[in-house]
Amino acid sequence: MSKYAIGIDYGTLSGRALLVDVKTGAELATSVYDYPHSVMDTSLPSGKALKADWALQHPRDYIDVLAHTIPAVIEESGVDARDIIGIGIDFTACTILPTLKDGTPLCFLDKYSDEPHAYVKLWKHHAAQEYATRINEIAKKRSEEFLKYCGGKVSSEWAIPKVWQVFDEAPALYKDADRFIEAADWVVWQLTGHETRNACCAGYKALWNKNNGFPSDDFFKSLDSGLEHVIDEKFGRQVMPIGAKAGEINDFAAKLTGLCAGTAVAVGIIDAHVFVPAVGITREGEMLAIMGTSTCHMMLSDKERFVDGICGVVADGIMPGYYGYEAGQGCVGDHFSWFIDNCLPKDYYDEARAKGISIHKLLRQKCENKRPGESGLVALDWWNGNRSVLVDADLTGMMLGMTLRTKPEDIYRALIEATAYGTRMIIETFNKHGVPVTSFYAAGGISQKDPMMMQIYADVIKMPIKIAGSEQGGALGSAIFGAVAAGAAAGGYDDVFTAAGAMGKVKETVYHPVGENAAVYDKLFSEYKTLHDYFGRGANDVMKRLKRIVAERGE
Amino acid sequence: MSKYAIGIDYGTLSGRALLVDVKTGAELATSVYDYPHSVMDTSLPSGKALKADWALQHPRDYIDVLAHTIPAVIEESGVDARDIIGIGIDFTACTILPTLKDGTPLCFLDKYSDEPHAYVKLWKHHAAQEYATRINEIAKKRSEEFLKYCGGKVSSEWAIPKVWQVFDEAPALYKDADRFIEAADWVVWQLTGHETRNACCAGYKALWNKNNGFPSDDFFKSLDSGLEHVIDEKFGRQVMPIGAKAGEINDFAAKLTGLCAGTAVAVGIIDAHVFVPAVGITREGEMLAIMGTSTCHMMLSDKERFVDGICGVVADGIMPGYYGYEAGQGCVGDHFSWFIDNCLPKDYYDEARAKGISIHKLLRQKCENKRPGESGLVALDWWNGNRSVLVDADLTGMMLGMTLRTKPEDIYRALIEATAYGTRMIIETFNKHGVPVTSFYAAGGISQKDPMMMQIYADVIKMPIKIAGSEQGGALGSAIFGAVAAGAAAGGYDDVFTAAGAMGKVKETVYHPVGENAAVYDKLFSEYKTLHDYFGRGANDVMKRLKRIVAERGE
Repeated sequence: MSKYAIGIDYGTLSGRALLVDVKTGAELATSVYDYPHSVMDTSLPSGKALKADWALQHPRDYIDVLAHTIPAVIEESGVDARDIIGIGIDFTACTILPTLKDGTPLCFLDKYSDEPHAYVKLWKHHAAQEYATRINEIAKKRSEEFLKYCGGKVSSEWAIPKVWQVFDEAPALYKDADRFIEAADWVVWQLTGHETRNACCAGYKALWNKNNGFPSDDFFKSLDSGLEHVIDEKFGRQVMPIGAKAGEINDFAAKLTGLCAGTAVAVGIIDAHVFVPAVGITREGEMLAIMGTSTCHMMLSDKERFVDGICGVVADGIMPGYYGYEAGQGCVGDHFSWFIDNCLPKDYYDEARAKGISIHKLLRQKCENKRPGESGLVALDWWNGNRSVLVDADLTGMMLGMTLRTKPEDIYRALIEATAYGTRMIIETFNKHGVPVTSFYAAGGISQKDPMMMQIYADVIKMPIKIAGSEQGGALGSAIFGAVAAGAAAGGYDDVFTAAGAMGKVKETVYHPVGENAAVYDKLFSEYKTLHDYFGRGANDVMKRLKRIVAERGE
Repeated sequence: MSKYAIGIDYGTLSGRALLVDVKTGAELATSVYDYPHSVMDTSLPSGKALKADWALQHPRDYIDVLAHTIPAVIEESGVDARDIIGIGIDFTACTILPTLKDGTPLCFLDKYSDEPHAYVKLWKHHAAQEYATRINEIAKKRSEEFLKYCGGKVSSEWAIPKVWQVFDEAPALYKDADRFIEAADWVVWQLTGHETRNACCAGYKALWNKNNGFPSDDFFKSLDSGLEHVIDEKFGRQVMPIGAKAGEINDFAAKLTGLCAGTAVAVGIIDAHVFVPAVGITREGEMLAIMGTSTCHMMLSDKERFVDGICGVVADGIMPGYYGYEAGQGCVGDHFSWFIDNCLPKDYYDEARAKGISIHKLLRQKCENKRPGESGLVALDWWNGNRSVLVDADLTGMMLGMTLRTKPEDIYRALIEATAYGTRMIIETFNKHGVPVTSFYAAGGISQKDPMMMQIYADVIKMPIKIAGSEQGGALGSAIFGAVAAGAAAGGYDDVFTAAGAMGKVKETVYHPVGENAAVYDKLFSEYKTLHDYFGRGANDVMKRLKRIVAERGE
């Protein structure tokens, strides 16, 4: 008798359910539900205006995803709900909301329905920047240990700056909030009836560390005396490892979703990190790049090392028993969109239309037969700053080698190559710090759609690249955790490594480096590296000085 | 009774006559004649194919210009030919042809009508590059003095490489050629009936120096034993200063043009250098930039200094009694054409069409209200190498500061600013070497049509910019030399300085630097300079290495 698991992948604009065969990983049915309130970045449902840089969501939408998509996949697949043994949840992060002790979001209360701070602060809510800046100043002065684990800098997107913003700007609401909780954990709470917190969100987004716990009360006191006990008062110190079981579907959730009460529910996880088991990674040294508008790099290791400029290292944060490393490139697909929006001449559109193909396809046709080094261009992929390994948002893009013969497709390809060099820089930094990268996987839209780019990456990093086998890798990863939460006795798995081995998938196509290309890219990468260090490590801070001039001019 | 002079300006595609009032510089009539054979770069009139990089002209076209345009301006102005006291000629250079002893071009002989080497080699004939390369190697090894006067490098566009190419590739024709002569001097020969050679062409294009003469026979022998006496056999050593009288209109020319026999004819001059008197420059320290697809910088000084990376310093080469300095930027208007051809998105065309304006105008509208430094971009203007002050064709373009918010107009403006920084670099190099630039004039198409760019230049170089008053500055300059050739007794002038003061013109509009902008541009220029030296003076030769990779890839 086959058993099944469901993964729910909560993205920025919609949630998706995927029903998977636990034995084979076969995907039987999927359903997507767009959030009715989408991203609220200009006004609340009441019409109340929001300030610049705000980005909120409505938690009712998350419940609606459960209510719509789970019954839909059960029905579409024709599976008996009793054969669905587990469910897992992944979510964008840090996406955080204030609730009462019983989990009721404050925005559900009439009293707060018109208060922006009562809603979910989405990951890309950037209005807490001043709090992040102060946290970094104070933490640096105090030489806080936690800086080592997060690449040296706290992002405005993370939990503590967001919570401090509430404390400062809406003190009464802060007082009424019994909990601040990640949306991933909040959804699990709705399904199981009790609160859990997962190591992935806590570690990568809330400065938690398995050995040291959260930052000290003394540190929080140094921010503001009213924040001294914020962890005990609003978070709680119990954090569960990824791969654990959070609880079981309760009566409310059974009625909402059509699942049987008692079905196992996995602890939540971030929507990027969940891709690791989905491609079947079960060993250290196997790096996964999730490539879209930006790229996230994930890797497991049994060693804890402080790699320069990574976004975080978290014990149990991706797979249990391993240190999970995350690094990133802030601008990948965004480069190409920028290029097409701002740099592509009219006659290319005419040509694409005449040929009946998309503009991306036309550019690829013009690029793909070029040989490495043929254009004479090299770029630094910093149009959106550098996330890893320099962790510097004030760096900007650079390109050189242009002549009057340079064509648009040369620039397009140089941007692709630059992002590949950025990835190689991350890999070399891991290697240098004793966390060797031994193989490489790619997931995300680009990995599925752009063979030319994947080949360039293979030639630049000089490793074969395996491609994610599912186009719904997030939901598949969550289903794997659901199967693990159910356990082998129920027809699932007792450990996530066995589960990932059975249910995780890569495509048959592997991109192998071509020796001749790799040799040329070695030379070009060496130029990239020289420029990377010259502009990125203080020899010439021209980019920062230009940004300062821009800021002065804007005043 | 008013007296008149005629200037004939020979460009790349046509010749223009301008009839000018000698007292006031007022322009009474103009006439243009397109060369029937235009530029021959694919085949001869016979249909015989030309190799890559060849660019020839037909000398009959130059005679036709005289025959068409001079009668036309006489007729249009209604002036009596007896009141036309002088004529001057300016020409592209080095534009050189082989002739018999009497001035007959070899291509007029049946024997050679099908021989490419018998025709005029136009300035942009680039097929002599290998000869230029060998000249530079040998001259450097011999530490030839003349290298000091020409910025250290002989261009493939100059006379000696072109003549060596004929010697090597067409030995029989070389033997039959009694003279190799610049087209400027050949036209003067046709008008006067005897051969003269002008200091401007000889100095800037044929390695001649007032004190040292031409390079030594021993040097020419070191190129090839057959070239040992090339100067005496094919050129002659008599070189006349600019501003001198070459002779008088002879009977043939009187019949051809309608001018009176005996009318004074000035020695020829290069079409760029002739702009200097046309804007009324009569003193040292006044720099003139002629701005078009590329920019030429001219300046007079009473001192001979070896300024790094200038294109040449020639005694009597621009105005008599002065050292004439020339520097250059190889890519100015070409940057903007490249940008519009390769980088401008479709919706900008749609917007320009909807507004009923040109794409250049739309870009200017989007740029002109931006404040200096607002875009955060800095570029190196090396899309076509660097002519001055680095004299390095292997340098390439660079831009930095791009973010996802960078708009096309930001890039467009950054390219304009980069060319302005390049001009400031030239000015500062002159200043540093004891040839101070005290004021600045601009001529050429850009100076007439682009007030935004002129204002940016004024803000960057921190000097007021005066604009050429005539749109036919070349022909006006030649007319000034015609008036000087005639002399005061005939109603003209005895010296070119008085003539230029009376007949040269600038517009009333002067672009004055705006203090606030200049302060920001000081900062940006300092960034440009750091990058200029880093990439241009050996600290990081990435551009050359990339070009080497391109060359290897092309094999």
